[in-house]
This record gives sequence, structure tokens and C-alpha cells, in this order.
Amino acid sequence: MFSIRTKAPGSYARTGTLRLAHGTVETPAFVPLATKAVVKTLEVREAAELGFDMVLGNTFHLFLNPGHELIGRLGGLHRFQRWDRPIITDSGGFQVFSMGHGTVADEIKGRAAQFVGERAGAILSIEEEGVRFRSYLDGATKFMGPETSMEVQAALGSDIALVFDECTPFHADRDYTARSTERTHRWLDRCLAWHAQHGPAGQAVYGIVQGGVEEDLRRASAQEVAARDVGGIAIGGTLGENKAQMFEVVEWTVEELPEAKPRHLLGIGEVDDLVRGVELGIDTFDCAMPTRIGRHGMALIPDPERRWRVDLAKARWREVDEPILDGCPCPACAHGYSRAYVHYLLKAREQTAMRLLTIHNLAFLSRLMAELRAAIDEGRLPAAAAAVRAGAAPWHLNAET
Amino acid sequence: MFSIRTKAPGSYARTGTLRLAHGTVETPAFVPLATKAVVKTLEVREAAELGFDMVLGNTFHLFLNPGHELIGRLGGLHRFQRWDRPIITDSGGFQVFSMGHGTVADEIKGRAAQFVGERAGAILSIEEEGVRFRSYLDGATKFMGPETSMEVQAALGSDIALVFDECTPFHADRDYTARSTERTHRWLDRCLAWHAQHGPAGQAVYGIVQGGVEEDLRRASAQEVAARDVGGIAIGGTLGENKAQMFEVVEWTVEELPEAKPRHLLGIGEVDDLVRGVELGIDTFDCAMPTRIGRHGMALIPDPERRWRVDLAKARWREVDEPILDGCPCPACAHGYSRAYVHYLLKAREQTAMRLLTIHNLAFLSRLMAELRAAIDEGRLPAAAAAVRAGAAPWHLNAET
Repeated sequence: MFSIRTKAPGSYARTGTLRLAHGTVETPAFVPLATKAVVKTLEVREAAELGFDMVLGNTFHLFLNPGHELIGRLGGLHRFQRWDRPIITDSGGFQVFSMGHGTVADEIKGRAAQFVGERAGAILSIEEEGVRFRSYLDGATKFMGPETSMEVQAALGSDIALVFDECTPFHADRDYTARSTERTHRWLDRCLAWHAQHGPAGQAVYGIVQGGVEEDLRRASAQEVAARDVGGIAIGGTLGENKAQMFEVVEWTVEELPEAKPRHLLGIGEVDDLVRGVELGIDTFDCAMPTRIGRHGMALIPDPERRWRVDLAKARWREVDEPILDGCPCPACAHGYSRAYVHYLLKAREQTAMRLLTIHNLAFLSRLMAELRAAIDEGRLPAAAAAVRAGAAPWHLNAET
Repeated sequence: MFSIRTKAPGSYARTGTLRLAHGTVETPAFVPLATKAVVKTLEVREAAELGFDMVLGNTFHLFLNPGHELIGRLGGLHRFQRWDRPIITDSGGFQVFSMGHGTVADEIKGRAAQFVGERAGAILSIEEEGVRFRSYLDGATKFMGPETSMEVQAALGSDIALVFDECTPFHADRDYTARSTERTHRWLDRCLAWHAQHGPAGQAVYGIVQGGVEEDLRRASAQEVAARDVGGIAIGGTLGENKAQMFEVVEWTVEELPEAKPRHLLGIGEVDDLVRGVELGIDTFDCAMPTRIGRHGMALIPDPERRWRVDLAKARWREVDEPILDGCPCPACAHGYSRAYVHYLLKAREQTAMRLLTIHNLAFLSRLMAELRAAIDEGRLPAAAAAVRAGAAPWHLNAET
């Protein structure tokens, strides 16, 4: 299902092709979120127009609403959201445990902000069998364990299912992390056993490496997952308190993984993180960042000093008749909307602003990944990576390297 | 600027072409609202993809935010919203007086619902000079009179400016309506005088007929407006308490109007009203209905029994795997989204649902008007009108008539 095309010399980086039930994914690739069966503010099909081969759906959210049975009766997630290309579904582990670990979830890869307003949910118990929790939608008691997660993903019919894991937070001590990681391995076996009996034909299953920030636990977890018959391997859990530690954890993990299996880095997608992840041999990434910051008025720009973003809701853009990003070939910039106009739409709370910024941000990452793939294939990844880090626009990478 | 192509025998209906500064408009035509410099949930440019030649901007809203000076400095409304086709701007009269007449505005053509949440604004005084009111945005005292309205519309640079009028409510007595209508005529002269001196080259000015539901006042107002050197004539104000009265008022008015000038019916756009308006010789219409009901979960369908609409937010659509409207060629229906999916998106408060329904509803009206134009040109308007009233889909009108 995964073939490697080019390996970058002196690096873990590689280009390849994932062959999945609904088509192929050129890697390394960013995977936009279609968490709740929609890429927020867009139609899912527009992800393809923006250059993406695959989107990510979420088991936890779709389990609660509208329910996997309903989506199953309506022909599965592809048909429900009218997207006939690959879908990867997150297992729900991260979301379930985010509720339980409370505000500590904020530490986990900065993803907890998506739960604002959903704090009504809470974990009632975590046991070997699974997790009992209260739905953030209606307060109903719900249960999710490894088999539930796989059953939901089977009904959704995703191309890649992720196994159910406990996403241990950064604050957990070594002892808790070790016990939790062992349970995640037992859950991995239960997921694979359920899938072997009931999983839909053609659905790949990725195991998830945990182990927190402890080197021996991470390496052991990577070995455990790699020893199973999994279609690919995802790297999850807390990745540390800063980017240096995050990529140390990723490197420990990658060193233990077989070259031939595709690797997914969960929840990571800042511009510099994508470059570093590619250098460390990650094949696919997902992250709420481009779509979420777009809904908050921010546009991605090639500016490392400003974390690659500009906040168009700020008053300083009120009269600035410049495009969102000069020279950007994305559909929003190509049509010439000014920063002043986008600023105005944001202040007037017109949803078109969020849509334009989502389009721009996704197109930015799509182009970045395409250029990194080309750079690997053409043997010039180091120069391309250096250019991104120095603030080159994605569409200038080929010219500058 | 206006040429009539075909006159329907035994009817006031006609097809024609409006030649404006930024292009032509084939009439009779529906004009979608871009009230606040955006077609809500879409980009303005998408109106063209949906078959529209012109959009309507709003003087009152753009005066308050972001301000006509700012839009003027940024090159005018066309450039601000990146739309290089015709724009008609409403004068702000309706909006200003809606605040003053309070809930009575609800009676005026059902348009007042768009002011939900904006009731903080209020009229402070109505005098010969104009109207002083409190901004719904920040409580600041603002003034708008005939010259202000024309100045704003000059800065916006619309193709068609509407003169500033008092939109008298249905509850106003004959005496108030008579005095108000006379003032509207004096304001018309002031608007034309200002425009003659300061108006941008190529901007047409439409006068507005008032007179409430009093036949003599309406006819007199129509004659007064027609006697001026206006580019076209709009019909405004209360049109009565039901559709029969509304079209009686429209017919009195049209009988007094010169054939050669284009006629705009303000704020009317229900499917049956468009058909009747066309029969009465109306050339252009604007209405919040298709975009507003779309944002509230409703889709236009060819069903007179249900006021041509279906509410997809209702639970009965939860599992219905049928398109929004079977056979509809619009971009939302053509892509096959099911009612179940749109229902789910609405309940999940995903803005994509509002966008899909806005697209569908605008496409429905665009096609309806195109088919009515074809029917007039081909001498079969009576059959086409009867078919619409019997529940024929717009794209079946040519086949069925």
C-alpha cells in the first residue's frame, strides 16, 4: 500500500505514494481536517481543488453526532460528505482523553482550543475495557473502547482507521505514562483483533506510538507497534514542552520504525514543524491550525518572525489595499481581495472572510508540501528547507533552491 | 440606457437590456443582495457564476460601516468587493425609517427581520432636512438626508443610485402618507440637484414612487417621479397587507409610468411575486428572501403549496438520502448533497450549510428569471407563468410550455 520513490540523502526524508481504497496520496502530505464531515467553511470537495488527496474525519465527533449508524445507513462517510477520495479517521482517543485530562489537554500539541464551548463533556471512568464519558452535546453517558472505535470507523468506511489509544498528557508522571502506554498496546491488539474479524475490506489500520517524553518508553512503544501487522504507524501523545523536545521525541520514534511503513504525525502542522517533520521521515500530517486560524482572522504568510501568520482582524489593516499575500496563487489571493476588505468582513462578522482565509491557508500548506516533495525528488531538500525557514514563499522554493 | 426587446401581448411584461456603466443587465432580472459589500456566505463574484448581472449594495449599512469615505479612498464599491459588473445601491431610506417606525417595519414587505439584533438604533428626528438617528453599531448620532445619501452613493460609485425617500409604513394614515409622499418628491428634486452637480459620470439615478396604498396618492406619485429626468423608477413603501393589494398598488403605479423607463420593484422576490411582477411590467427586483431563508435552513422548491420552500432544519430530513431538489442543476444539487447531510450540517451549525442553500436558492431564482425572459421572447409567457404557479421547476418551463 505504500511505496517509497525517493530517499533524501543524509536525512530520513522520503517521497512516496500511499495506495488506499479510494485513491492515492502523494507523500509527504498535509491532511486537512474534515472533523465533523466537513472542512469548516468549505465543501469537502474543495480540498481536492486546493491540492489535497486526503482529509481527516473524527471518530469521536461523528460517533456523537450524527452517529456512525446513521452515516453507515446513508452509505458511509465518503458518500455522506460527497468525497470519493481517501479519508483517514482519527480514533477518538485524543478527544475522549482531552475531556478527562481537563485543561492539561491544552499542553498537548495546542489542540485543545477546539474544545472551547464543549467542556460540558467529562470523563466518568477510564478502565481496561474503555472510557465512559458524558457527551458534550446532550449530557448522555457514552462509552468508547477499542472495539467501539473500530466499529465506528468501520461504519464510517474510512480508508485509514487509527487504533484507539490513551493520549497521555505532558504532566503525567513516568509511572502513569508507562502503564498507560502498555494499556494502549493492549488496546492496539484488541483493535487489530476486532478489525481482522469485522473491518471493512480495504481499510488500513494504523497503530499509534505513545510513551510521552521518556526516551525508553517511546522507543519501546515504537517497537511494539512496529511488531504488529499494521498498515502504518501514527505518532501520538504529548511530544514535549517545546519544539526541540517534540522533534527529539519524533526522532527517537522514527529511528525504531521500519522504513517501509507510512508514518503519520498526529496534530502537527505549523510551517516549520512540517519542514522538520519531513526531514525526520514523516509521510503525513494533520492539524487544525490552517483552518482554525483562518476562522480567527489569520492568514499564513512566509514570515518566520511572525510564526508564519498575520492577523487581519487587527485595526492596522483597515485601509491597506494590498492582497492577503502578494504573489500568492491561491483562489482567494488570485481574485485580489485586499487586506482592508478581509478586515472589514471579519469585523462585520461575515462568514465569507473565514472562508477566504481558510482557502488561502490550506492552499499555502498544499503548495508547501508539493514543493517539498519536488525538492526531495530533485535532491535539493536541504536548500528548500533552509529557504522556508528563511521566509521564502512556497511558490518560490523551486526558483530559490 | 434601457432598450426593450419584446413586449408580451396582453400584458405589461417585456424583456430588455439595461446598459450601465459596468455592463449590461438582461431584464426582467432578480438582483441578489450584497447589502454589506458581500453576498452573505458567498463571494460577490459568485453571483455571476450563478447567472446574475447585477447585485444590490446598501447605502445605510455601508455608510455606517466601513464608511463610504473609506470605500471611496479604496477605489469605490466595485473595487472594494472585487465585482466589476453593475451595482445598484439602495438609498438607505428604507433602513433609516425601519428604525423609526419600529415593529411596524415588519409590515413592510416582510423585510424587517433583517434588523434582528440591530434594534439599538433609533430615529432621533425626522425633519425636512433629513433624518437624525443613532447608529446601531456604536450608538453615535448620525444624519442622513437626500444629499448625504447621494454623496454616499457617489463615493460607492454604483451604476444605479436610488433617491432618498421616506418609506411610509402600512399603519400610517392617509394624511401622514400624503405629507410624507410630498416630502419624498421634494427629496427627489434635491437628490437630482445634488447628482447633477456632483454625481459620478455614468451613474444612473432612479426615482422612488411612494404613496402607500392610496390609489390617488400612488398614481400622483408615479406621475411626479415620471415627470423628472430620472434614469429609471423604483416602486417603494408599503404595498399593502396582502399580495392582492400589493399587486393592485403595483398596477396603479405601472399604469402611470412611461414604457421606456426601467422599473425596479423594491424588496419583492417570492417566486409567485416575481411571476406577477414580470406580468405587471417590472424589469428588476431585489429581495433578501433567497439568501436569508438559505441561512435559516430553507431551500427553494417548486411547490406553491409550501410557499416554494422546504425547511431542511426539520428533524424529518435526518435520514433522507435525496438531493436538496431532485433534478436541480445548481452547483449544490449537482454535487449531490443529500437533505440528510444538509440537515446534519445545519444542526451542527456548520456555515457550509448556509452557503450551499444560498447557492441553491439564488440559482433557483436566476434560472426562473432566465426562463421567464425566454418565455416572453418566445411569446409563451402565459403558459410559463401558469406552469410556475402550478409547481413546475424553473428548468422545466421551456419543456412544459
